[in-house]
Amino acid sequence: MTATTAPVGYDASHRPRSGAAGEGPAWTSATDLEAIVSAAAACATEVGEATPRERTGWLQAVAAALDAAGEELVALADEETALGIPRLSGELTRGAVNMRYYAAVGERGEWLRVRKQRLPGPPEVDLRRANLPVGPVAVFAASNFPFQFGVLGHDTCSALAAGCPVVVKAHPAHPRLSVRLGELARHALAETGAPAGALAVVAGFEAGLALVDSPLIRAVAFTGSQRGGMALLERARQRPQPIPVYAEMGTVNPVLVTPAAGARMGAIAEEFVGAVTLGAGQFCTKPGLLLTPRGAGGPAAVAEHVSAADGVWLLTGGISAAYSDGIADMERAGATVLAHGGSQPEGYTVRPTVLKVDLDSLVPGSRLLEECFGPVAIVAEYDRVDAALGVLARMQPSLVGTMYAEGGDDPDLPPVAARLAGQTGRVVVNGPSTGVACADAMHHGGPWPSTSNPATTSVGAEALGRFTRPVAFQNAPEAALPPALRDTDPWQLGGG
Amino acid sequence: MTATTAPVGYDASHRPRSGAAGEGPAWTSATDLEAIVSAAAACATEVGEATPRERTGWLQAVAAALDAAGEELVALADEETALGIPRLSGELTRGAVNMRYYAAVGERGEWLRVRKQRLPGPPEVDLRRANLPVGPVAVFAASNFPFQFGVLGHDTCSALAAGCPVVVKAHPAHPRLSVRLGELARHALAETGAPAGALAVVAGFEAGLALVDSPLIRAVAFTGSQRGGMALLERARQRPQPIPVYAEMGTVNPVLVTPAAGARMGAIAEEFVGAVTLGAGQFCTKPGLLLTPRGAGGPAAVAEHVSAADGVWLLTGGISAAYSDGIADMERAGATVLAHGGSQPEGYTVRPTVLKVDLDSLVPGSRLLEECFGPVAIVAEYDRVDAALGVLARMQPSLVGTMYAEGGDDPDLPPVAARLAGQTGRVVVNGPSTGVACADAMHHGGPWPSTSNPATTSVGAEALGRFTRPVAFQNAPEAALPPALRDTDPWQLGGG
Repeated sequence: MTATTAPVGYDASHRPRSGAAGEGPAWTSATDLEAIVSAAAACATEVGEATPRERTGWLQAVAAALDAAGEELVALADEETALGIPRLSGELTRGAVNMRYYAAVGERGEWLRVRKQRLPGPPEVDLRRANLPVGPVAVFAASNFPFQFGVLGHDTCSALAAGCPVVVKAHPAHPRLSVRLGELARHALAETGAPAGALAVVAGFEAGLALVDSPLIRAVAFTGSQRGGMALLERARQRPQPIPVYAEMGTVNPVLVTPAAGARMGAIAEEFVGAVTLGAGQFCTKPGLLLTPRGAGGPAAVAEHVSAADGVWLLTGGISAAYSDGIADMERAGATVLAHGGSQPEGYTVRPTVLKVDLDSLVPGSRLLEECFGPVAIVAEYDRVDAALGVLARMQPSLVGTMYAEGGDDPDLPPVAARLAGQTGRVVVNGPSTGVACADAMHHGGPWPSTSNPATTSVGAEALGRFTRPVAFQNAPEAALPPALRDTDPWQLGGG
Repeated sequence: MTATTAPVGYDASHRPRSGAAGEGPAWTSATDLEAIVSAAAACATEVGEATPRERTGWLQAVAAALDAAGEELVALADEETALGIPRLSGELTRGAVNMRYYAAVGERGEWLRVRKQRLPGPPEVDLRRANLPVGPVAVFAASNFPFQFGVLGHDTCSALAAGCPVVVKAHPAHPRLSVRLGELARHALAETGAPAGALAVVAGFEAGLALVDSPLIRAVAFTGSQRGGMALLERARQRPQPIPVYAEMGTVNPVLVTPAAGARMGAIAEEFVGAVTLGAGQFCTKPGLLLTPRGAGGPAAVAEHVSAADGVWLLTGGISAAYSDGIADMERAGATVLAHGGSQPEGYTVRPTVLKVDLDSLVPGSRLLEECFGPVAIVAEYDRVDAALGVLARMQPSLVGTMYAEGGDDPDLPPVAARLAGQTGRVVVNGPSTGVACADAMHHGGPWPSTSNPATTSVGAEALGRFTRPVAFQNAPEAALPPALRDTDPWQLGGG
């Protein structure tokens, strides 16, 4: 456990390839944290009443800074995460694209849901409503996507686009990168004239708790484990005035192969194993359970591809240990290892692994139906689709569910899709679940506990809504209205 | 306490004017409750996949039945609530209008937020998202508006319009009316061919708990006290799979008169007292605190109008006793009674009351800043607007906040409106806060604890959203898509 070898008062900066850990950023002191949150609160009105076009300028400047510093950032990210230069370069580019996307969504203005009405009288009433920014938002960045879900990821970008200052808690899996991203972004923001408190990064566990406790923080966004998310939810609930916590938490994403699709088992198994091992299996959309028709050769095909997979490095020693413990727990719960992939000579290396279980052992509360972070999945064969549907119904809801079917006429397509739609936020047909496009039609969220608020998404146009609160104004003169609701309409959004 | 005089196993049907209580409906047994919830779940797909036009037919039939039975229903409502024939007739009419409004909103389809995209490849991806109905909803009807927030009120209508079966827990303040409304609606629904499980009414405290516990119930809507709402929230949190609880809870709605508006104190006091005593002070939008500039004669003017107000009947003996206790508590907390209104010869009668306090005694946690249900309010004079703004900042957030200002040039208009917008869901200028128009631009909700989910409203077009959950479909063939997302678009909503 390298965390304990770091000096007290500092995050350790992990080097997964060697297992060594250097000194990361100092933990933010209570005094500094208070100053940072106060600065965010002090500029909340300025950030919220800046025009969406101004905020676009801010986000575009940050995106440009990200692109410009790409080489340095990717190298630092690779040192801390071992995710590899190609993946990290691609992720950085997409992160900057996402940033510009949220700016454009902010300018489009649908997220404000402006409505202006004159209600017939007597007396006639002027009624106007809009979604207003809630104020300073605390973002708990994710471990697994240092760019797209990190300090400058979806949560931060959508909150800024909605007009909220953001204080990000750096993830300890890549603390130096997190702090560096914060510096770059703050510099770029300052150059465009954004308020100094619009964005800040803090480090350290205690600083994270203090953020959630701060009466100046109005909402929390989190991406990570159920344990982490639940702890934040509970903490926020204990506040004198609870605030919304938008937590996206890990569960097991299921994959079901219909009997008709069983004929394509080889290709399906290859795609499945690719999705299980992508990004060292550290995707929140990683498929964790494959339900295949008995006799189609699912277990053997999956085993073949896993055996051929390279060993990977996980982000930290803790995550690596949890992976091994998780597999041991699954074996105790009745699973047997079908195949392991390769390893790496040193560092936080683990072997991709697939286990086989009987359908009957997949019962609620079993370790087999809990997320294990890393390149592991379980395979179970079913005799009848109904039995597989029964397993789905017993699982915790998840972010995404996948089915492989044989064309639109496959008789099992409608019931399986309906079952998945009932318990996931995204239904994928005949493809891997791992990619999450940043697009208007995306939904990245699911029923509890995959998301604490199942009506919200952390990716796409609707992500901004989390950081707003509707307010109606009745017979309010121009001077009492927020910009988006004024007759003079300085934001030029129209509405009505 | 009449509740104890009712036979075990029955709700008491209160007669507030006499204080007597007759026998109300039998409590729903555990067996019956399970059958009712199962029937709701069994038809959830049918209700959710009915076209919005079909659901409009259902809601219109219920509205017509409500109108047709108006005389009988109003008489029964008046017997159980003593709210008076004129008020109840008007409310019933508006209830039927609201029902047709939600049907129309359902047909308009914006609440589905349909988005269809083809993302460029390779490989090209077909991505579609929509808000899908969550399934059976439990509605805890309110005490204070037997028609507009009762069995067939905003929650029920918006849930049905969004495609969710509804099971309503009858409020014990008007249980016979509640059951009768359920019968009428079920009959009307059956005549239009709606599934039998689309709507049901249950009675009894235990039945309410069982509803929240039922794994088949997917969301809860509640209107009432903080104590009741918090208990339901906690109960739902304890479920193996927590579900959203949309609770609208009572807090103190503030009113601030600017120094410039102090010149109109007589008219303002009259309007304020009218709003305090409307509906026996049992509005969730009742103003509870008046902050007036010292020297404008606020306390005297308010006292004059309260003295002239008639005594009123509260809904139950319990509510009446809580009212008296609340005023005694406020006196112990430093308030002094300025004036009482009249009384009624018998029954659950109370005297409208206004108390005066020093600004300094309005501190967080004080009984003075908690809702007291009934025709009571407190008045405090301020020397500087800043001090009054400080009181607002110390209050619990609320559904609505009101300010009286002197035209658009009043220098205190912007800061007071901004303060109210920061802690309420609706800002009213120069008018009473009590009316809540059922309109697209309405927002009826506020920050915690006035609403458990401050992003949601229980009135207006956005009310449907509470009973939906977004789902994205990726490369799904026609047969795997819900109706609203199909290319053949049987709902004819367009979208994209």
